[in-house]
Amino acid sequence: MATKITDAFWRRYQSIVKNEMLPYQWKVLNDEADICIERERDDSSIPNEKSHAIENFKIAAGQSAGNHYGWVFQDSDVYKWLEAAAYTLENDMDQELKELADKVVDLIGSAQEEDGYLGTYFTIEAPERKFKRLSESHELYCAGHFLEAAVAYYGATGNEKAVGMACKLADCIDRHFGKEEGKIRGYDGHEEIEIGLMRLFHLTGEERYLNLSRFFLYERGADNAFFEKQKAEDPNQTPLIQGLDKFPLSYYQVHKPILEQDTAEGHAVRLVYMCTAMADAAEASGDEKLLNVCRKIWRNIVDRRMYITGGIGSTVIGESFTFDYNLPNDTMYCETCASVGLIFFAYQMLRNEIRGEYGDVMERALYNTALAGMALDGKHFFYVNPLEVNPESSRRDPGKSHVKAVRPEWLGCACCPPNLARLLASLNHYVYLKKETTVYSVLFMNCESEFETEKGSLFVRQETEYPYKGTVRFLLRQNGDEELGFAVRIPGWANRYTVEWNGQIVDVKSKDGYIYFRKRFTDDTITLQFDMEIEVWEANPLVRADIGKAAVSRGPFVYCAEGIDNGENLHLLKLDAQAGFRYSYDAQLLGGVGIIKAFGYRQVPKPGALYHKMNDLGGETETEITLIPYYAWANRGVNEMRVWMRRKDSAKPFDIPN
Amino acid sequence: MATKITDAFWRRYQSIVKNEMLPYQWKVLNDEADICIERERDDSSIPNEKSHAIENFKIAAGQSAGNHYGWVFQDSDVYKWLEAAAYTLENDMDQELKELADKVVDLIGSAQEEDGYLGTYFTIEAPERKFKRLSESHELYCAGHFLEAAVAYYGATGNEKAVGMACKLADCIDRHFGKEEGKIRGYDGHEEIEIGLMRLFHLTGEERYLNLSRFFLYERGADNAFFEKQKAEDPNQTPLIQGLDKFPLSYYQVHKPILEQDTAEGHAVRLVYMCTAMADAAEASGDEKLLNVCRKIWRNIVDRRMYITGGIGSTVIGESFTFDYNLPNDTMYCETCASVGLIFFAYQMLRNEIRGEYGDVMERALYNTALAGMALDGKHFFYVNPLEVNPESSRRDPGKSHVKAVRPEWLGCACCPPNLARLLASLNHYVYLKKETTVYSVLFMNCESEFETEKGSLFVRQETEYPYKGTVRFLLRQNGDEELGFAVRIPGWANRYTVEWNGQIVDVKSKDGYIYFRKRFTDDTITLQFDMEIEVWEANPLVRADIGKAAVSRGPFVYCAEGIDNGENLHLLKLDAQAGFRYSYDAQLLGGVGIIKAFGYRQVPKPGALYHKMNDLGGETETEITLIPYYAWANRGVNEMRVWMRRKDSAKPFDIPN
Repeated sequence: MATKITDAFWRRYQSIVKNEMLPYQWKVLNDEADICIERERDDSSIPNEKSHAIENFKIAAGQSAGNHYGWVFQDSDVYKWLEAAAYTLENDMDQELKELADKVVDLIGSAQEEDGYLGTYFTIEAPERKFKRLSESHELYCAGHFLEAAVAYYGATGNEKAVGMACKLADCIDRHFGKEEGKIRGYDGHEEIEIGLMRLFHLTGEERYLNLSRFFLYERGADNAFFEKQKAEDPNQTPLIQGLDKFPLSYYQVHKPILEQDTAEGHAVRLVYMCTAMADAAEASGDEKLLNVCRKIWRNIVDRRMYITGGIGSTVIGESFTFDYNLPNDTMYCETCASVGLIFFAYQMLRNEIRGEYGDVMERALYNTALAGMALDGKHFFYVNPLEVNPESSRRDPGKSHVKAVRPEWLGCACCPPNLARLLASLNHYVYLKKETTVYSVLFMNCESEFETEKGSLFVRQETEYPYKGTVRFLLRQNGDEELGFAVRIPGWANRYTVEWNGQIVDVKSKDGYIYFRKRFTDDTITLQFDMEIEVWEANPLVRADIGKAAVSRGPFVYCAEGIDNGENLHLLKLDAQAGFRYSYDAQLLGGVGIIKAFGYRQVPKPGALYHKMNDLGGETETEITLIPYYAWANRGVNEMRVWMRRKDSAKPFDIPN
Repeated sequence: MATKITDAFWRRYQSIVKNEMLPYQWKVLNDEADICIERERDDSSIPNEKSHAIENFKIAAGQSAGNHYGWVFQDSDVYKWLEAAAYTLENDMDQELKELADKVVDLIGSAQEEDGYLGTYFTIEAPERKFKRLSESHELYCAGHFLEAAVAYYGATGNEKAVGMACKLADCIDRHFGKEEGKIRGYDGHEEIEIGLMRLFHLTGEERYLNLSRFFLYERGADNAFFEKQKAEDPNQTPLIQGLDKFPLSYYQVHKPILEQDTAEGHAVRLVYMCTAMADAAEASGDEKLLNVCRKIWRNIVDRRMYITGGIGSTVIGESFTFDYNLPNDTMYCETCASVGLIFFAYQMLRNEIRGEYGDVMERALYNTALAGMALDGKHFFYVNPLEVNPESSRRDPGKSHVKAVRPEWLGCACCPPNLARLLASLNHYVYLKKETTVYSVLFMNCESEFETEKGSLFVRQETEYPYKGTVRFLLRQNGDEELGFAVRIPGWANRYTVEWNGQIVDVKSKDGYIYFRKRFTDDTITLQFDMEIEVWEANPLVRADIGKAAVSRGPFVYCAEGIDNGENLHLLKLDAQAGFRYSYDAQLLGGVGIIKAFGYRQVPKPGALYHKMNDLGGETETEITLIPYYAWANRGVNEMRVWMRRKDSAKPFDIPN
């Protein structure tokens, strides 16, 4: 499969990755950027003086002297940078960037130990603790990221050295972990190695890597005293990360054996990384039991624990899921990385079974929380993606210190920016999915693709003004005489759609969110017209935080109100969903966004007493409410924002006006 | 002034203090109670194995061996017990209790050092750190509580030993603190000594105690690097309380000189204790500047930072105030102690100036948050008094671990139960206020009082069915021939009232919430009839947490809905304030409470998707909503509760039905 994105909306982001994020992050990793690294929240244990990530590798390689600095997982920043660079080179070869990336591979290679071990903290500071405190060490987590980067880099550049290092590292891990006598029977506190091993398996076909990935998954929670036992035997009792002790076993998804887990628990990024690997391994090994676990956790996330923006993680404490329908809008976590991981999980589920909802969630997370993770300038990043912000609360309510009102330049724990960069740069891998002789369209954007199927190649050109207009045209041509399949996802938000096949309106029933075509494609044109209307949503009434409120969307974008457009105290506004909306595209605003104007009311605050008798009630004035796409918020300075607006009571159900 | 409460409602509480709380707390202080001490929140540094408070005194007195256990301020639990015992003896002399209390005084005396120093932690564990780490040590805080207890105990029993020890302790402090060369120019992290010194001054007339109290107040924040300097010079760098470092200077009210403070900042209990002492010292020394600070902070609390239940402290982090109109109902602190302190502050303000609002706030805090701090059985206590509780959130949202859904038996930091006990036992001191030749009625309850004024004594009998009915009758008789004054507070909740004087309806205008009578009282009868209606309240619209919601009250009681009466998911209910209410007194329920039945709607949850388009909206069903007085909640097992109910939109202002 090879897809070349030509879409202006997404190429802009890929160009930001290439021209802003990668050079900028490179400077940060080298401590050459003149920036302020903010802590994610009020916690003095977060290292924020510098990144030091490249220097750590130099010290481990013997090219420099000094101590390791930063988080124990600091290496992964470099691997994610390398992975993003790889995809960028795949999209747009650039000799200078390639030479830089080659040097990074060389540097990592110099830091890799003779036996394949790779991990600068332990090489430099604590070789005696290698693999001895896996609850906190992130050793396998970092290794997993290196495996992903190496596979991507090979795919982009054919650099075999990186893959060689990856295999050497995977073999080292394979020698240390397993059920056999003398090996460690356990797992990392933070899932990721399982994903890396799957990717290395897909590239090399080496079954040992698939088996090792499955081993780590199936061991998870099988012996849930594993971390305690390791801690007791660790030669050094200093924690590698302060404060992780206080979290329950579910934080690490080790509270139960993996096959018994049926809800999304604990640290949200860890959970979706685990699920990504599970779904991948289930597909690769035909493991229906594993797939069933994925299905249950998926249902739990999507039906009960996911924000309308595709954000996940309801609490900052442990950056974790909490419980069903608990979706507070102003204290949540909704880490950018978690939504990136949710996209990975959804795509792996789609590989197992073709259901439109997987693509719907990818779209929801991508166009909303993932994009919101980055400022329009590509140089400022959110870690936490709130659905409701009052800057005064962020400043003065210590329970909301993690909810930033503008994107900081860089963060003490810099996982999110490079994670977002690698997603944006690799987006061509998520536009379609090929299974046997059928190609499935997943995301809508202008692009050209060529697919090698078992029965010949299929060329597809996609033409659309998505995400602003609902028309998507596919031009299909194939080599070979046998019939091929082509399927298109019908987005969950589309109330109505029409299908034209070579100029003729056809009546095609969708199955699980997809419509299917099968023939010998000879310059066929399939045109879908989704009615892209303004939609008003309410949450399941069991979501306490959203009761009596409404959220507005159009196409893949969830909308929000900002203070700069609507004045302060957004909670005073009430949307009248029955009064209609106006939509217009403004090319000048926020890099080009569709604006929604709504009719509503503003409660007039009354000076004086804190509590009034109801018959003293002040009035409401009519007002216009301006909404912008959520991803574009916080690009005009510090101000309030909210996604879920209070709504005027409606006496009866009603239809949405066009 | 001597008031004897005869009121059934309050005598029941005083009898609970005498027969349940004091014996129970005595067992706890002696580690003889078979109870589970809960931590206030998820924090493993909170000592919760035992109280050890009496044992600490025995060790300090050389009567027992071992180490100090518990908080550095553990002594104050014993002092607050002694103070509550004192008031109880004042109400109902009991030889057995007196002998026990005498022994406690003796024990404390044996633990007092030769120079007057009193503080078991430092005597036992760290004599070299005495007065060296005042930000955390609570040495003067504990001393202040002993002073209060000693003064109360003398008042009840005439025991001079206690007062002698108090003077010896105050003199010791006076020798160590002051502006003079060689003395410590600083203050305690937790205000309280200032209150204790004022009480000792009022009893003894010794101006040094007034001056020392004023010294501590005026030093506060004058040099706000004082704590840092002390820490740097502390011979032992181990903190006395883990984690206090992370709080800002405003936590201790030392961020600015006291005369520049005009908002309620930091730890709520500390703030109101400071204000109590300030208002007392302002009155005693005619210090208008100090009184003006009190007025500003009062306005800030009452107009912007106080819950409708009289609770204060918007965040668990630092148990602190946050900012104007920030009054979240489900994450707040609203510590019982803070409302007890607010009552003290209000009463001291009333001593400075006669304004009904001070009595209104005393009533609000007393009948709601303070009473809610205790279960009806007198054996279980809230520290945190939420206005909205979902037990599942308390269990599974780590940001709400401090919000308990039922009262624990005892708490790791046991400040609240004894603080509540001393308030309830001393309530007779707050029913009236005497200034010169006028007696002011503050709280309404059946009682008999005799006041010595400058111009003879005044006998007052108060007869009422308050808090259930709005009629209050005062029978007045005096000795002496000159005219005396009598004034009655008109509660802020009363829309209408009538006044009868010796059987004649009279037209009396109120001034600042009080109506005044002046004459020579010879068996006069003044009867007030307040229309005690059901009132519906809305918060100032700037209170985000309460927008679109209503709270219901009747007389001094704020009402709430509980799950046991209304089913789960109280957020689904919507009150129709225009549809009227029914009130009935139920003698069988919750020890006798007035029940309010309201008309409303229940949103019907719909199974399935987390987000629905608005035209998929499920319906509402009509329902009856049952409300009970807030103080009585959580006496029928674990269930949901909320004070602020969503309300149905009303098109226009309306009158409240009777």
